[in-house]
Amino acid sequence: MNKTATALANSGPLITKADSTPTPVARFLNKCHTDYVAENSGALASYIPELTKANPAHFGISLATIDGHVYEIGNSDVSFTIQSISKAFVFALALDLLGSERVEAAIGVEPSGDAFNSIRLTADNRPFNPMVNAGAIACTGLIYSAEGDRTFACILDALSRFAGRNLDVDESVFSSERATGDRNRAIAWLLRNYSVIGSEVDEVLNAYFRQCSVLVTARDLAIMAATLANRGINPMTDVQVVTPTAVARTLSVMTSSGMYDYAGEWTYRVGMPAKSGVGGGIVAALPSQLGLGTYSPLLDSHGNSVRGLKVCEALSSHFDLHVLARGGDVRTCVVADYDAGAGASRRSRPPSEQKILEKYRQDVRIIELVGALTFASIDYVSRRLSNEGQRPRILIVDFHRVPGVTKAAARLLAEVLDELRAEDGIAILSGLQQSSTACKSINEWISAGPSTKYFTLLDEAIEWAEDQIVYRYGGYNLNKTPAPLGEQALLAGLTADEIDQLAGLATKRSYLTGQRIIASGEAASAIHFIQSGMVSVKLASGVRLATLVQGMVFGEMALIEPRRTADVWADTNVQCLELPLEKFALFRESCPRFGETIMRNLATLLSKRLIWANTKVDLLSGY
Amino acid sequence: MNKTATALANSGPLITKADSTPTPVARFLNKCHTDYVAENSGALASYIPELTKANPAHFGISLATIDGHVYEIGNSDVSFTIQSISKAFVFALALDLLGSERVEAAIGVEPSGDAFNSIRLTADNRPFNPMVNAGAIACTGLIYSAEGDRTFACILDALSRFAGRNLDVDESVFSSERATGDRNRAIAWLLRNYSVIGSEVDEVLNAYFRQCSVLVTARDLAIMAATLANRGINPMTDVQVVTPTAVARTLSVMTSSGMYDYAGEWTYRVGMPAKSGVGGGIVAALPSQLGLGTYSPLLDSHGNSVRGLKVCEALSSHFDLHVLARGGDVRTCVVADYDAGAGASRRSRPPSEQKILEKYRQDVRIIELVGALTFASIDYVSRRLSNEGQRPRILIVDFHRVPGVTKAAARLLAEVLDELRAEDGIAILSGLQQSSTACKSINEWISAGPSTKYFTLLDEAIEWAEDQIVYRYGGYNLNKTPAPLGEQALLAGLTADEIDQLAGLATKRSYLTGQRIIASGEAASAIHFIQSGMVSVKLASGVRLATLVQGMVFGEMALIEPRRTADVWADTNVQCLELPLEKFALFRESCPRFGETIMRNLATLLSKRLIWANTKVDLLSGY
Repeated sequence: MNKTATALANSGPLITKADSTPTPVARFLNKCHTDYVAENSGALASYIPELTKANPAHFGISLATIDGHVYEIGNSDVSFTIQSISKAFVFALALDLLGSERVEAAIGVEPSGDAFNSIRLTADNRPFNPMVNAGAIACTGLIYSAEGDRTFACILDALSRFAGRNLDVDESVFSSERATGDRNRAIAWLLRNYSVIGSEVDEVLNAYFRQCSVLVTARDLAIMAATLANRGINPMTDVQVVTPTAVARTLSVMTSSGMYDYAGEWTYRVGMPAKSGVGGGIVAALPSQLGLGTYSPLLDSHGNSVRGLKVCEALSSHFDLHVLARGGDVRTCVVADYDAGAGASRRSRPPSEQKILEKYRQDVRIIELVGALTFASIDYVSRRLSNEGQRPRILIVDFHRVPGVTKAAARLLAEVLDELRAEDGIAILSGLQQSSTACKSINEWISAGPSTKYFTLLDEAIEWAEDQIVYRYGGYNLNKTPAPLGEQALLAGLTADEIDQLAGLATKRSYLTGQRIIASGEAASAIHFIQSGMVSVKLASGVRLATLVQGMVFGEMALIEPRRTADVWADTNVQCLELPLEKFALFRESCPRFGETIMRNLATLLSKRLIWANTKVDLLSGY
Repeated sequence: MNKTATALANSGPLITKADSTPTPVARFLNKCHTDYVAENSGALASYIPELTKANPAHFGISLATIDGHVYEIGNSDVSFTIQSISKAFVFALALDLLGSERVEAAIGVEPSGDAFNSIRLTADNRPFNPMVNAGAIACTGLIYSAEGDRTFACILDALSRFAGRNLDVDESVFSSERATGDRNRAIAWLLRNYSVIGSEVDEVLNAYFRQCSVLVTARDLAIMAATLANRGINPMTDVQVVTPTAVARTLSVMTSSGMYDYAGEWTYRVGMPAKSGVGGGIVAALPSQLGLGTYSPLLDSHGNSVRGLKVCEALSSHFDLHVLARGGDVRTCVVADYDAGAGASRRSRPPSEQKILEKYRQDVRIIELVGALTFASIDYVSRRLSNEGQRPRILIVDFHRVPGVTKAAARLLAEVLDELRAEDGIAILSGLQQSSTACKSINEWISAGPSTKYFTLLDEAIEWAEDQIVYRYGGYNLNKTPAPLGEQALLAGLTADEIDQLAGLATKRSYLTGQRIIASGEAASAIHFIQSGMVSVKLASGVRLATLVQGMVFGEMALIEPRRTADVWADTNVQCLELPLEKFALFRESCPRFGETIMRNLATLLSKRLIWANTKVDLLSGY
């Protein structure tokens, strides 16, 4: 993956300008910085002396995309304490660590209507939600009940994985928070009174104060938010930090309660789940698109960073970004949909097999998917399949352009495949990287077994399916005698005598499985007729151009090309008749029509390959 | 578009079972219906006698996808009054009709914490939000201020466009609502007191009572919700009912206030913006995926349909559907990215032009996109472009697999293209249907002009770009003399004498622009050498296989194929030398090596075409 960073301008001594060809997004963020740097309203947080030491001129913006690009401008590398922003990430951690049932029994999810430091609890004595101090302390308390002394280490580790680097604590802010945190102490004892937290009140408070004192930068916040936007996978490190379910729930409480008593308006106007902290940071996440982190320590009366709010609002309104303004068309998830006739593999087949495959082409259905798969896209695929009169005997679903699969899509797909198998069908999944997230979520739902096959390459999956069809309809040539030269398409039109004569000029050769028979770049000096076995023509990259079996020819391009343009490998033990070009020339002398005949046969072979390739181009062009 | 409906089972006399091969989603909804039909808790609304006449056994579920498929089960065709569900749709209408500024000045967007029929207003005397009665009456009042007597007609028309059919009013419910609506009357007069509505209080109330009395079915609600999920475009009729901005704002207030005093919990657990009505209906919309409509008149103490809530919760939890749980990978939006060398058009070029195009191939960059384009995907494209050292002279962006473009994507793309033009580049957009939504949103931002070109077909766009490059580097052959036969690749290797002899056997022919020269299916009896002009080889479907100019050959497949497999059309006035096959045979007698030579040349031509097609297959396969 191409992880790059664009530092846009230098508003202080801390950032160097790294990129002189900015994109529209870079220009937009640049303009935001220029526009709002002059905004000097608001005040530094003052409840502890350390926070008043912040530089009010500091202003950093960073935007991280879910493909791992970071835009940054201004003081995006200045450290400050994370404060209340930690609440969102620690809540996500608690959900995964303790299970949502336990967390939700202890903490509500309704907006409180009160200030963040309210001591009021719900009617059933729970904190209103995890974004107010009471809820956040309860959350840290829950983690303490599971992790004990390791609580803070566990929280710091999670925050670090969200940020993609090891974070530290500002010890003097921590000491200050601890020394002056009387109201939080009161809240904690009230929670203890209602058994929301256990008896180690001081230990929980210490972990909470430490968690608020973790040092981050605007860049860290952008990456942390992008991790939420990317279903819990850090786009810089590809580490799954929290589960998608924990992400959805965390973003939900950020939506309803993240911006203090401003939530309805925030959702309406900005439409990005967000959380701010009195340290001057704001994080905002737009699911499946981006994470934003801002730093400017001047706060408004609600405790939100003034410049940060402006950046969030400008970004949302300029680009009409809103989590609920999602478009889409499920139909574009199918890039190509065809049967074994239209989309034959690169394996060349003898005429008898071709005939079977043409007749039973609809026994194999190939669906190539693209993009992140959702409930709606797999429902669409399931309808495509059920709209056809008959289900295919073999269904190949190709994922090589699919970066991710939601749980819904995986479940639906599993049901489609189960149904196929219930009717004795075979399901093949191709193009799945075994280590990919997509593969993991699919494996969770789809039972592997003799009727579910996995192939890395689609072409190999199609070839395997073709073999099944040929086999089913009795098309396998079990005759182990070498393929007679007279059945070679390249020699069509020659008399039996002429064939015999030609055979006399050829040399018998044997190759072992895995041996290279022809190397790209060599002088092309002979034509090879396969008598038994199978070979594959491949590019240096490993891409297969063709697989050929007994009765077929390879190296025939020697007739028009002086050099080999691909490698040929023996897939099995192979017997060939090799005819050197000079013997060919010799034979042409004795058989005047031979030259024209063989060139005509070559043109015919090429014309068939061209039809295959053009069909494939049309399939993939999707017109 | 393939609009189909799946009626799943028959729980009453009203629905017929229409589909015996249900999909996983059909099965799931079926199971929901079976599971919850036995749930008999809750009570009918009783504040007006008409609502107590509902059949408590009725239970209908419908799910509409954004590609226009409707699933339905049970009493999905039973009519009932829309009641409070109308509030969401009328709010969207008001936003578009009066502008958001005016609407937002009159009505807030914060949850009230009170019941839906609260008469309390905000501190600045506005209704809390458009989902409580006060806000909804204010909304209808705003429409009245613009439409006067036409207010209800305008509302009914909008609701009908949301549903995709003409809706009616239940007059007896309307009379009852009007007769007993004292509390709403009180709210309206309070709104009048604060000048939130004008002086025609009775007219506004009448329109509001009528709007609540509109008859809908679960199926209607599903389609109305799917219209919200589809950025305001009704997926059954393709009509843009409201703007995407109005949709995002409506879904926002549904999220924060749609389910009465249950909003935080609803967002957290179900994660689909929703609205319920005391008539027994619920709508829920999952942006870019689906709309759900349910009907069951038994209500819980909050006034929400008991069975309807269960269906929403089951759908969301079974499939892990949550508006904030979106995955994605912006990189999959680029299906192919190549230059003029790798992705040449189907126009065959003479060697001099080929040489120029190979040398300056990077002057043309082609990017083929797929899927609904967002901020994140076009940002990714802009980074791909700016990461390259040099910008292409001509950039072709292909949209034929793109169903929609957000405002953000259109703005970003416009900026990328502006920048290209600022450097004297040319931008080409191909594959945009002029009538499509995508095209409209792009045109809103991109200034058309001499340096922005539109092509329907990508291949024609590439050809035009190639022409520009050839022209720029002086490669145009302005020589108007007919192309000499001796330069024909098919005749390479013949002596000048032999060429002369062959020319003597050929017939000169002229064709006019637009004339068909060869028809598919005809016997193939001659080979045509172009002396001047241009022809195109096309399939009956209109797909172009090749374009050929002077100095090239067409119909040469006659050498190996007895019948024509495509049409050939004169693109300009054309002069040809036609060589009938029998003359060829004659000439072959006198020139012994001729047969082999021409077949070799044919094989060489085909081999070049095969390379082109294989390159394209690789490009589009995206490996």
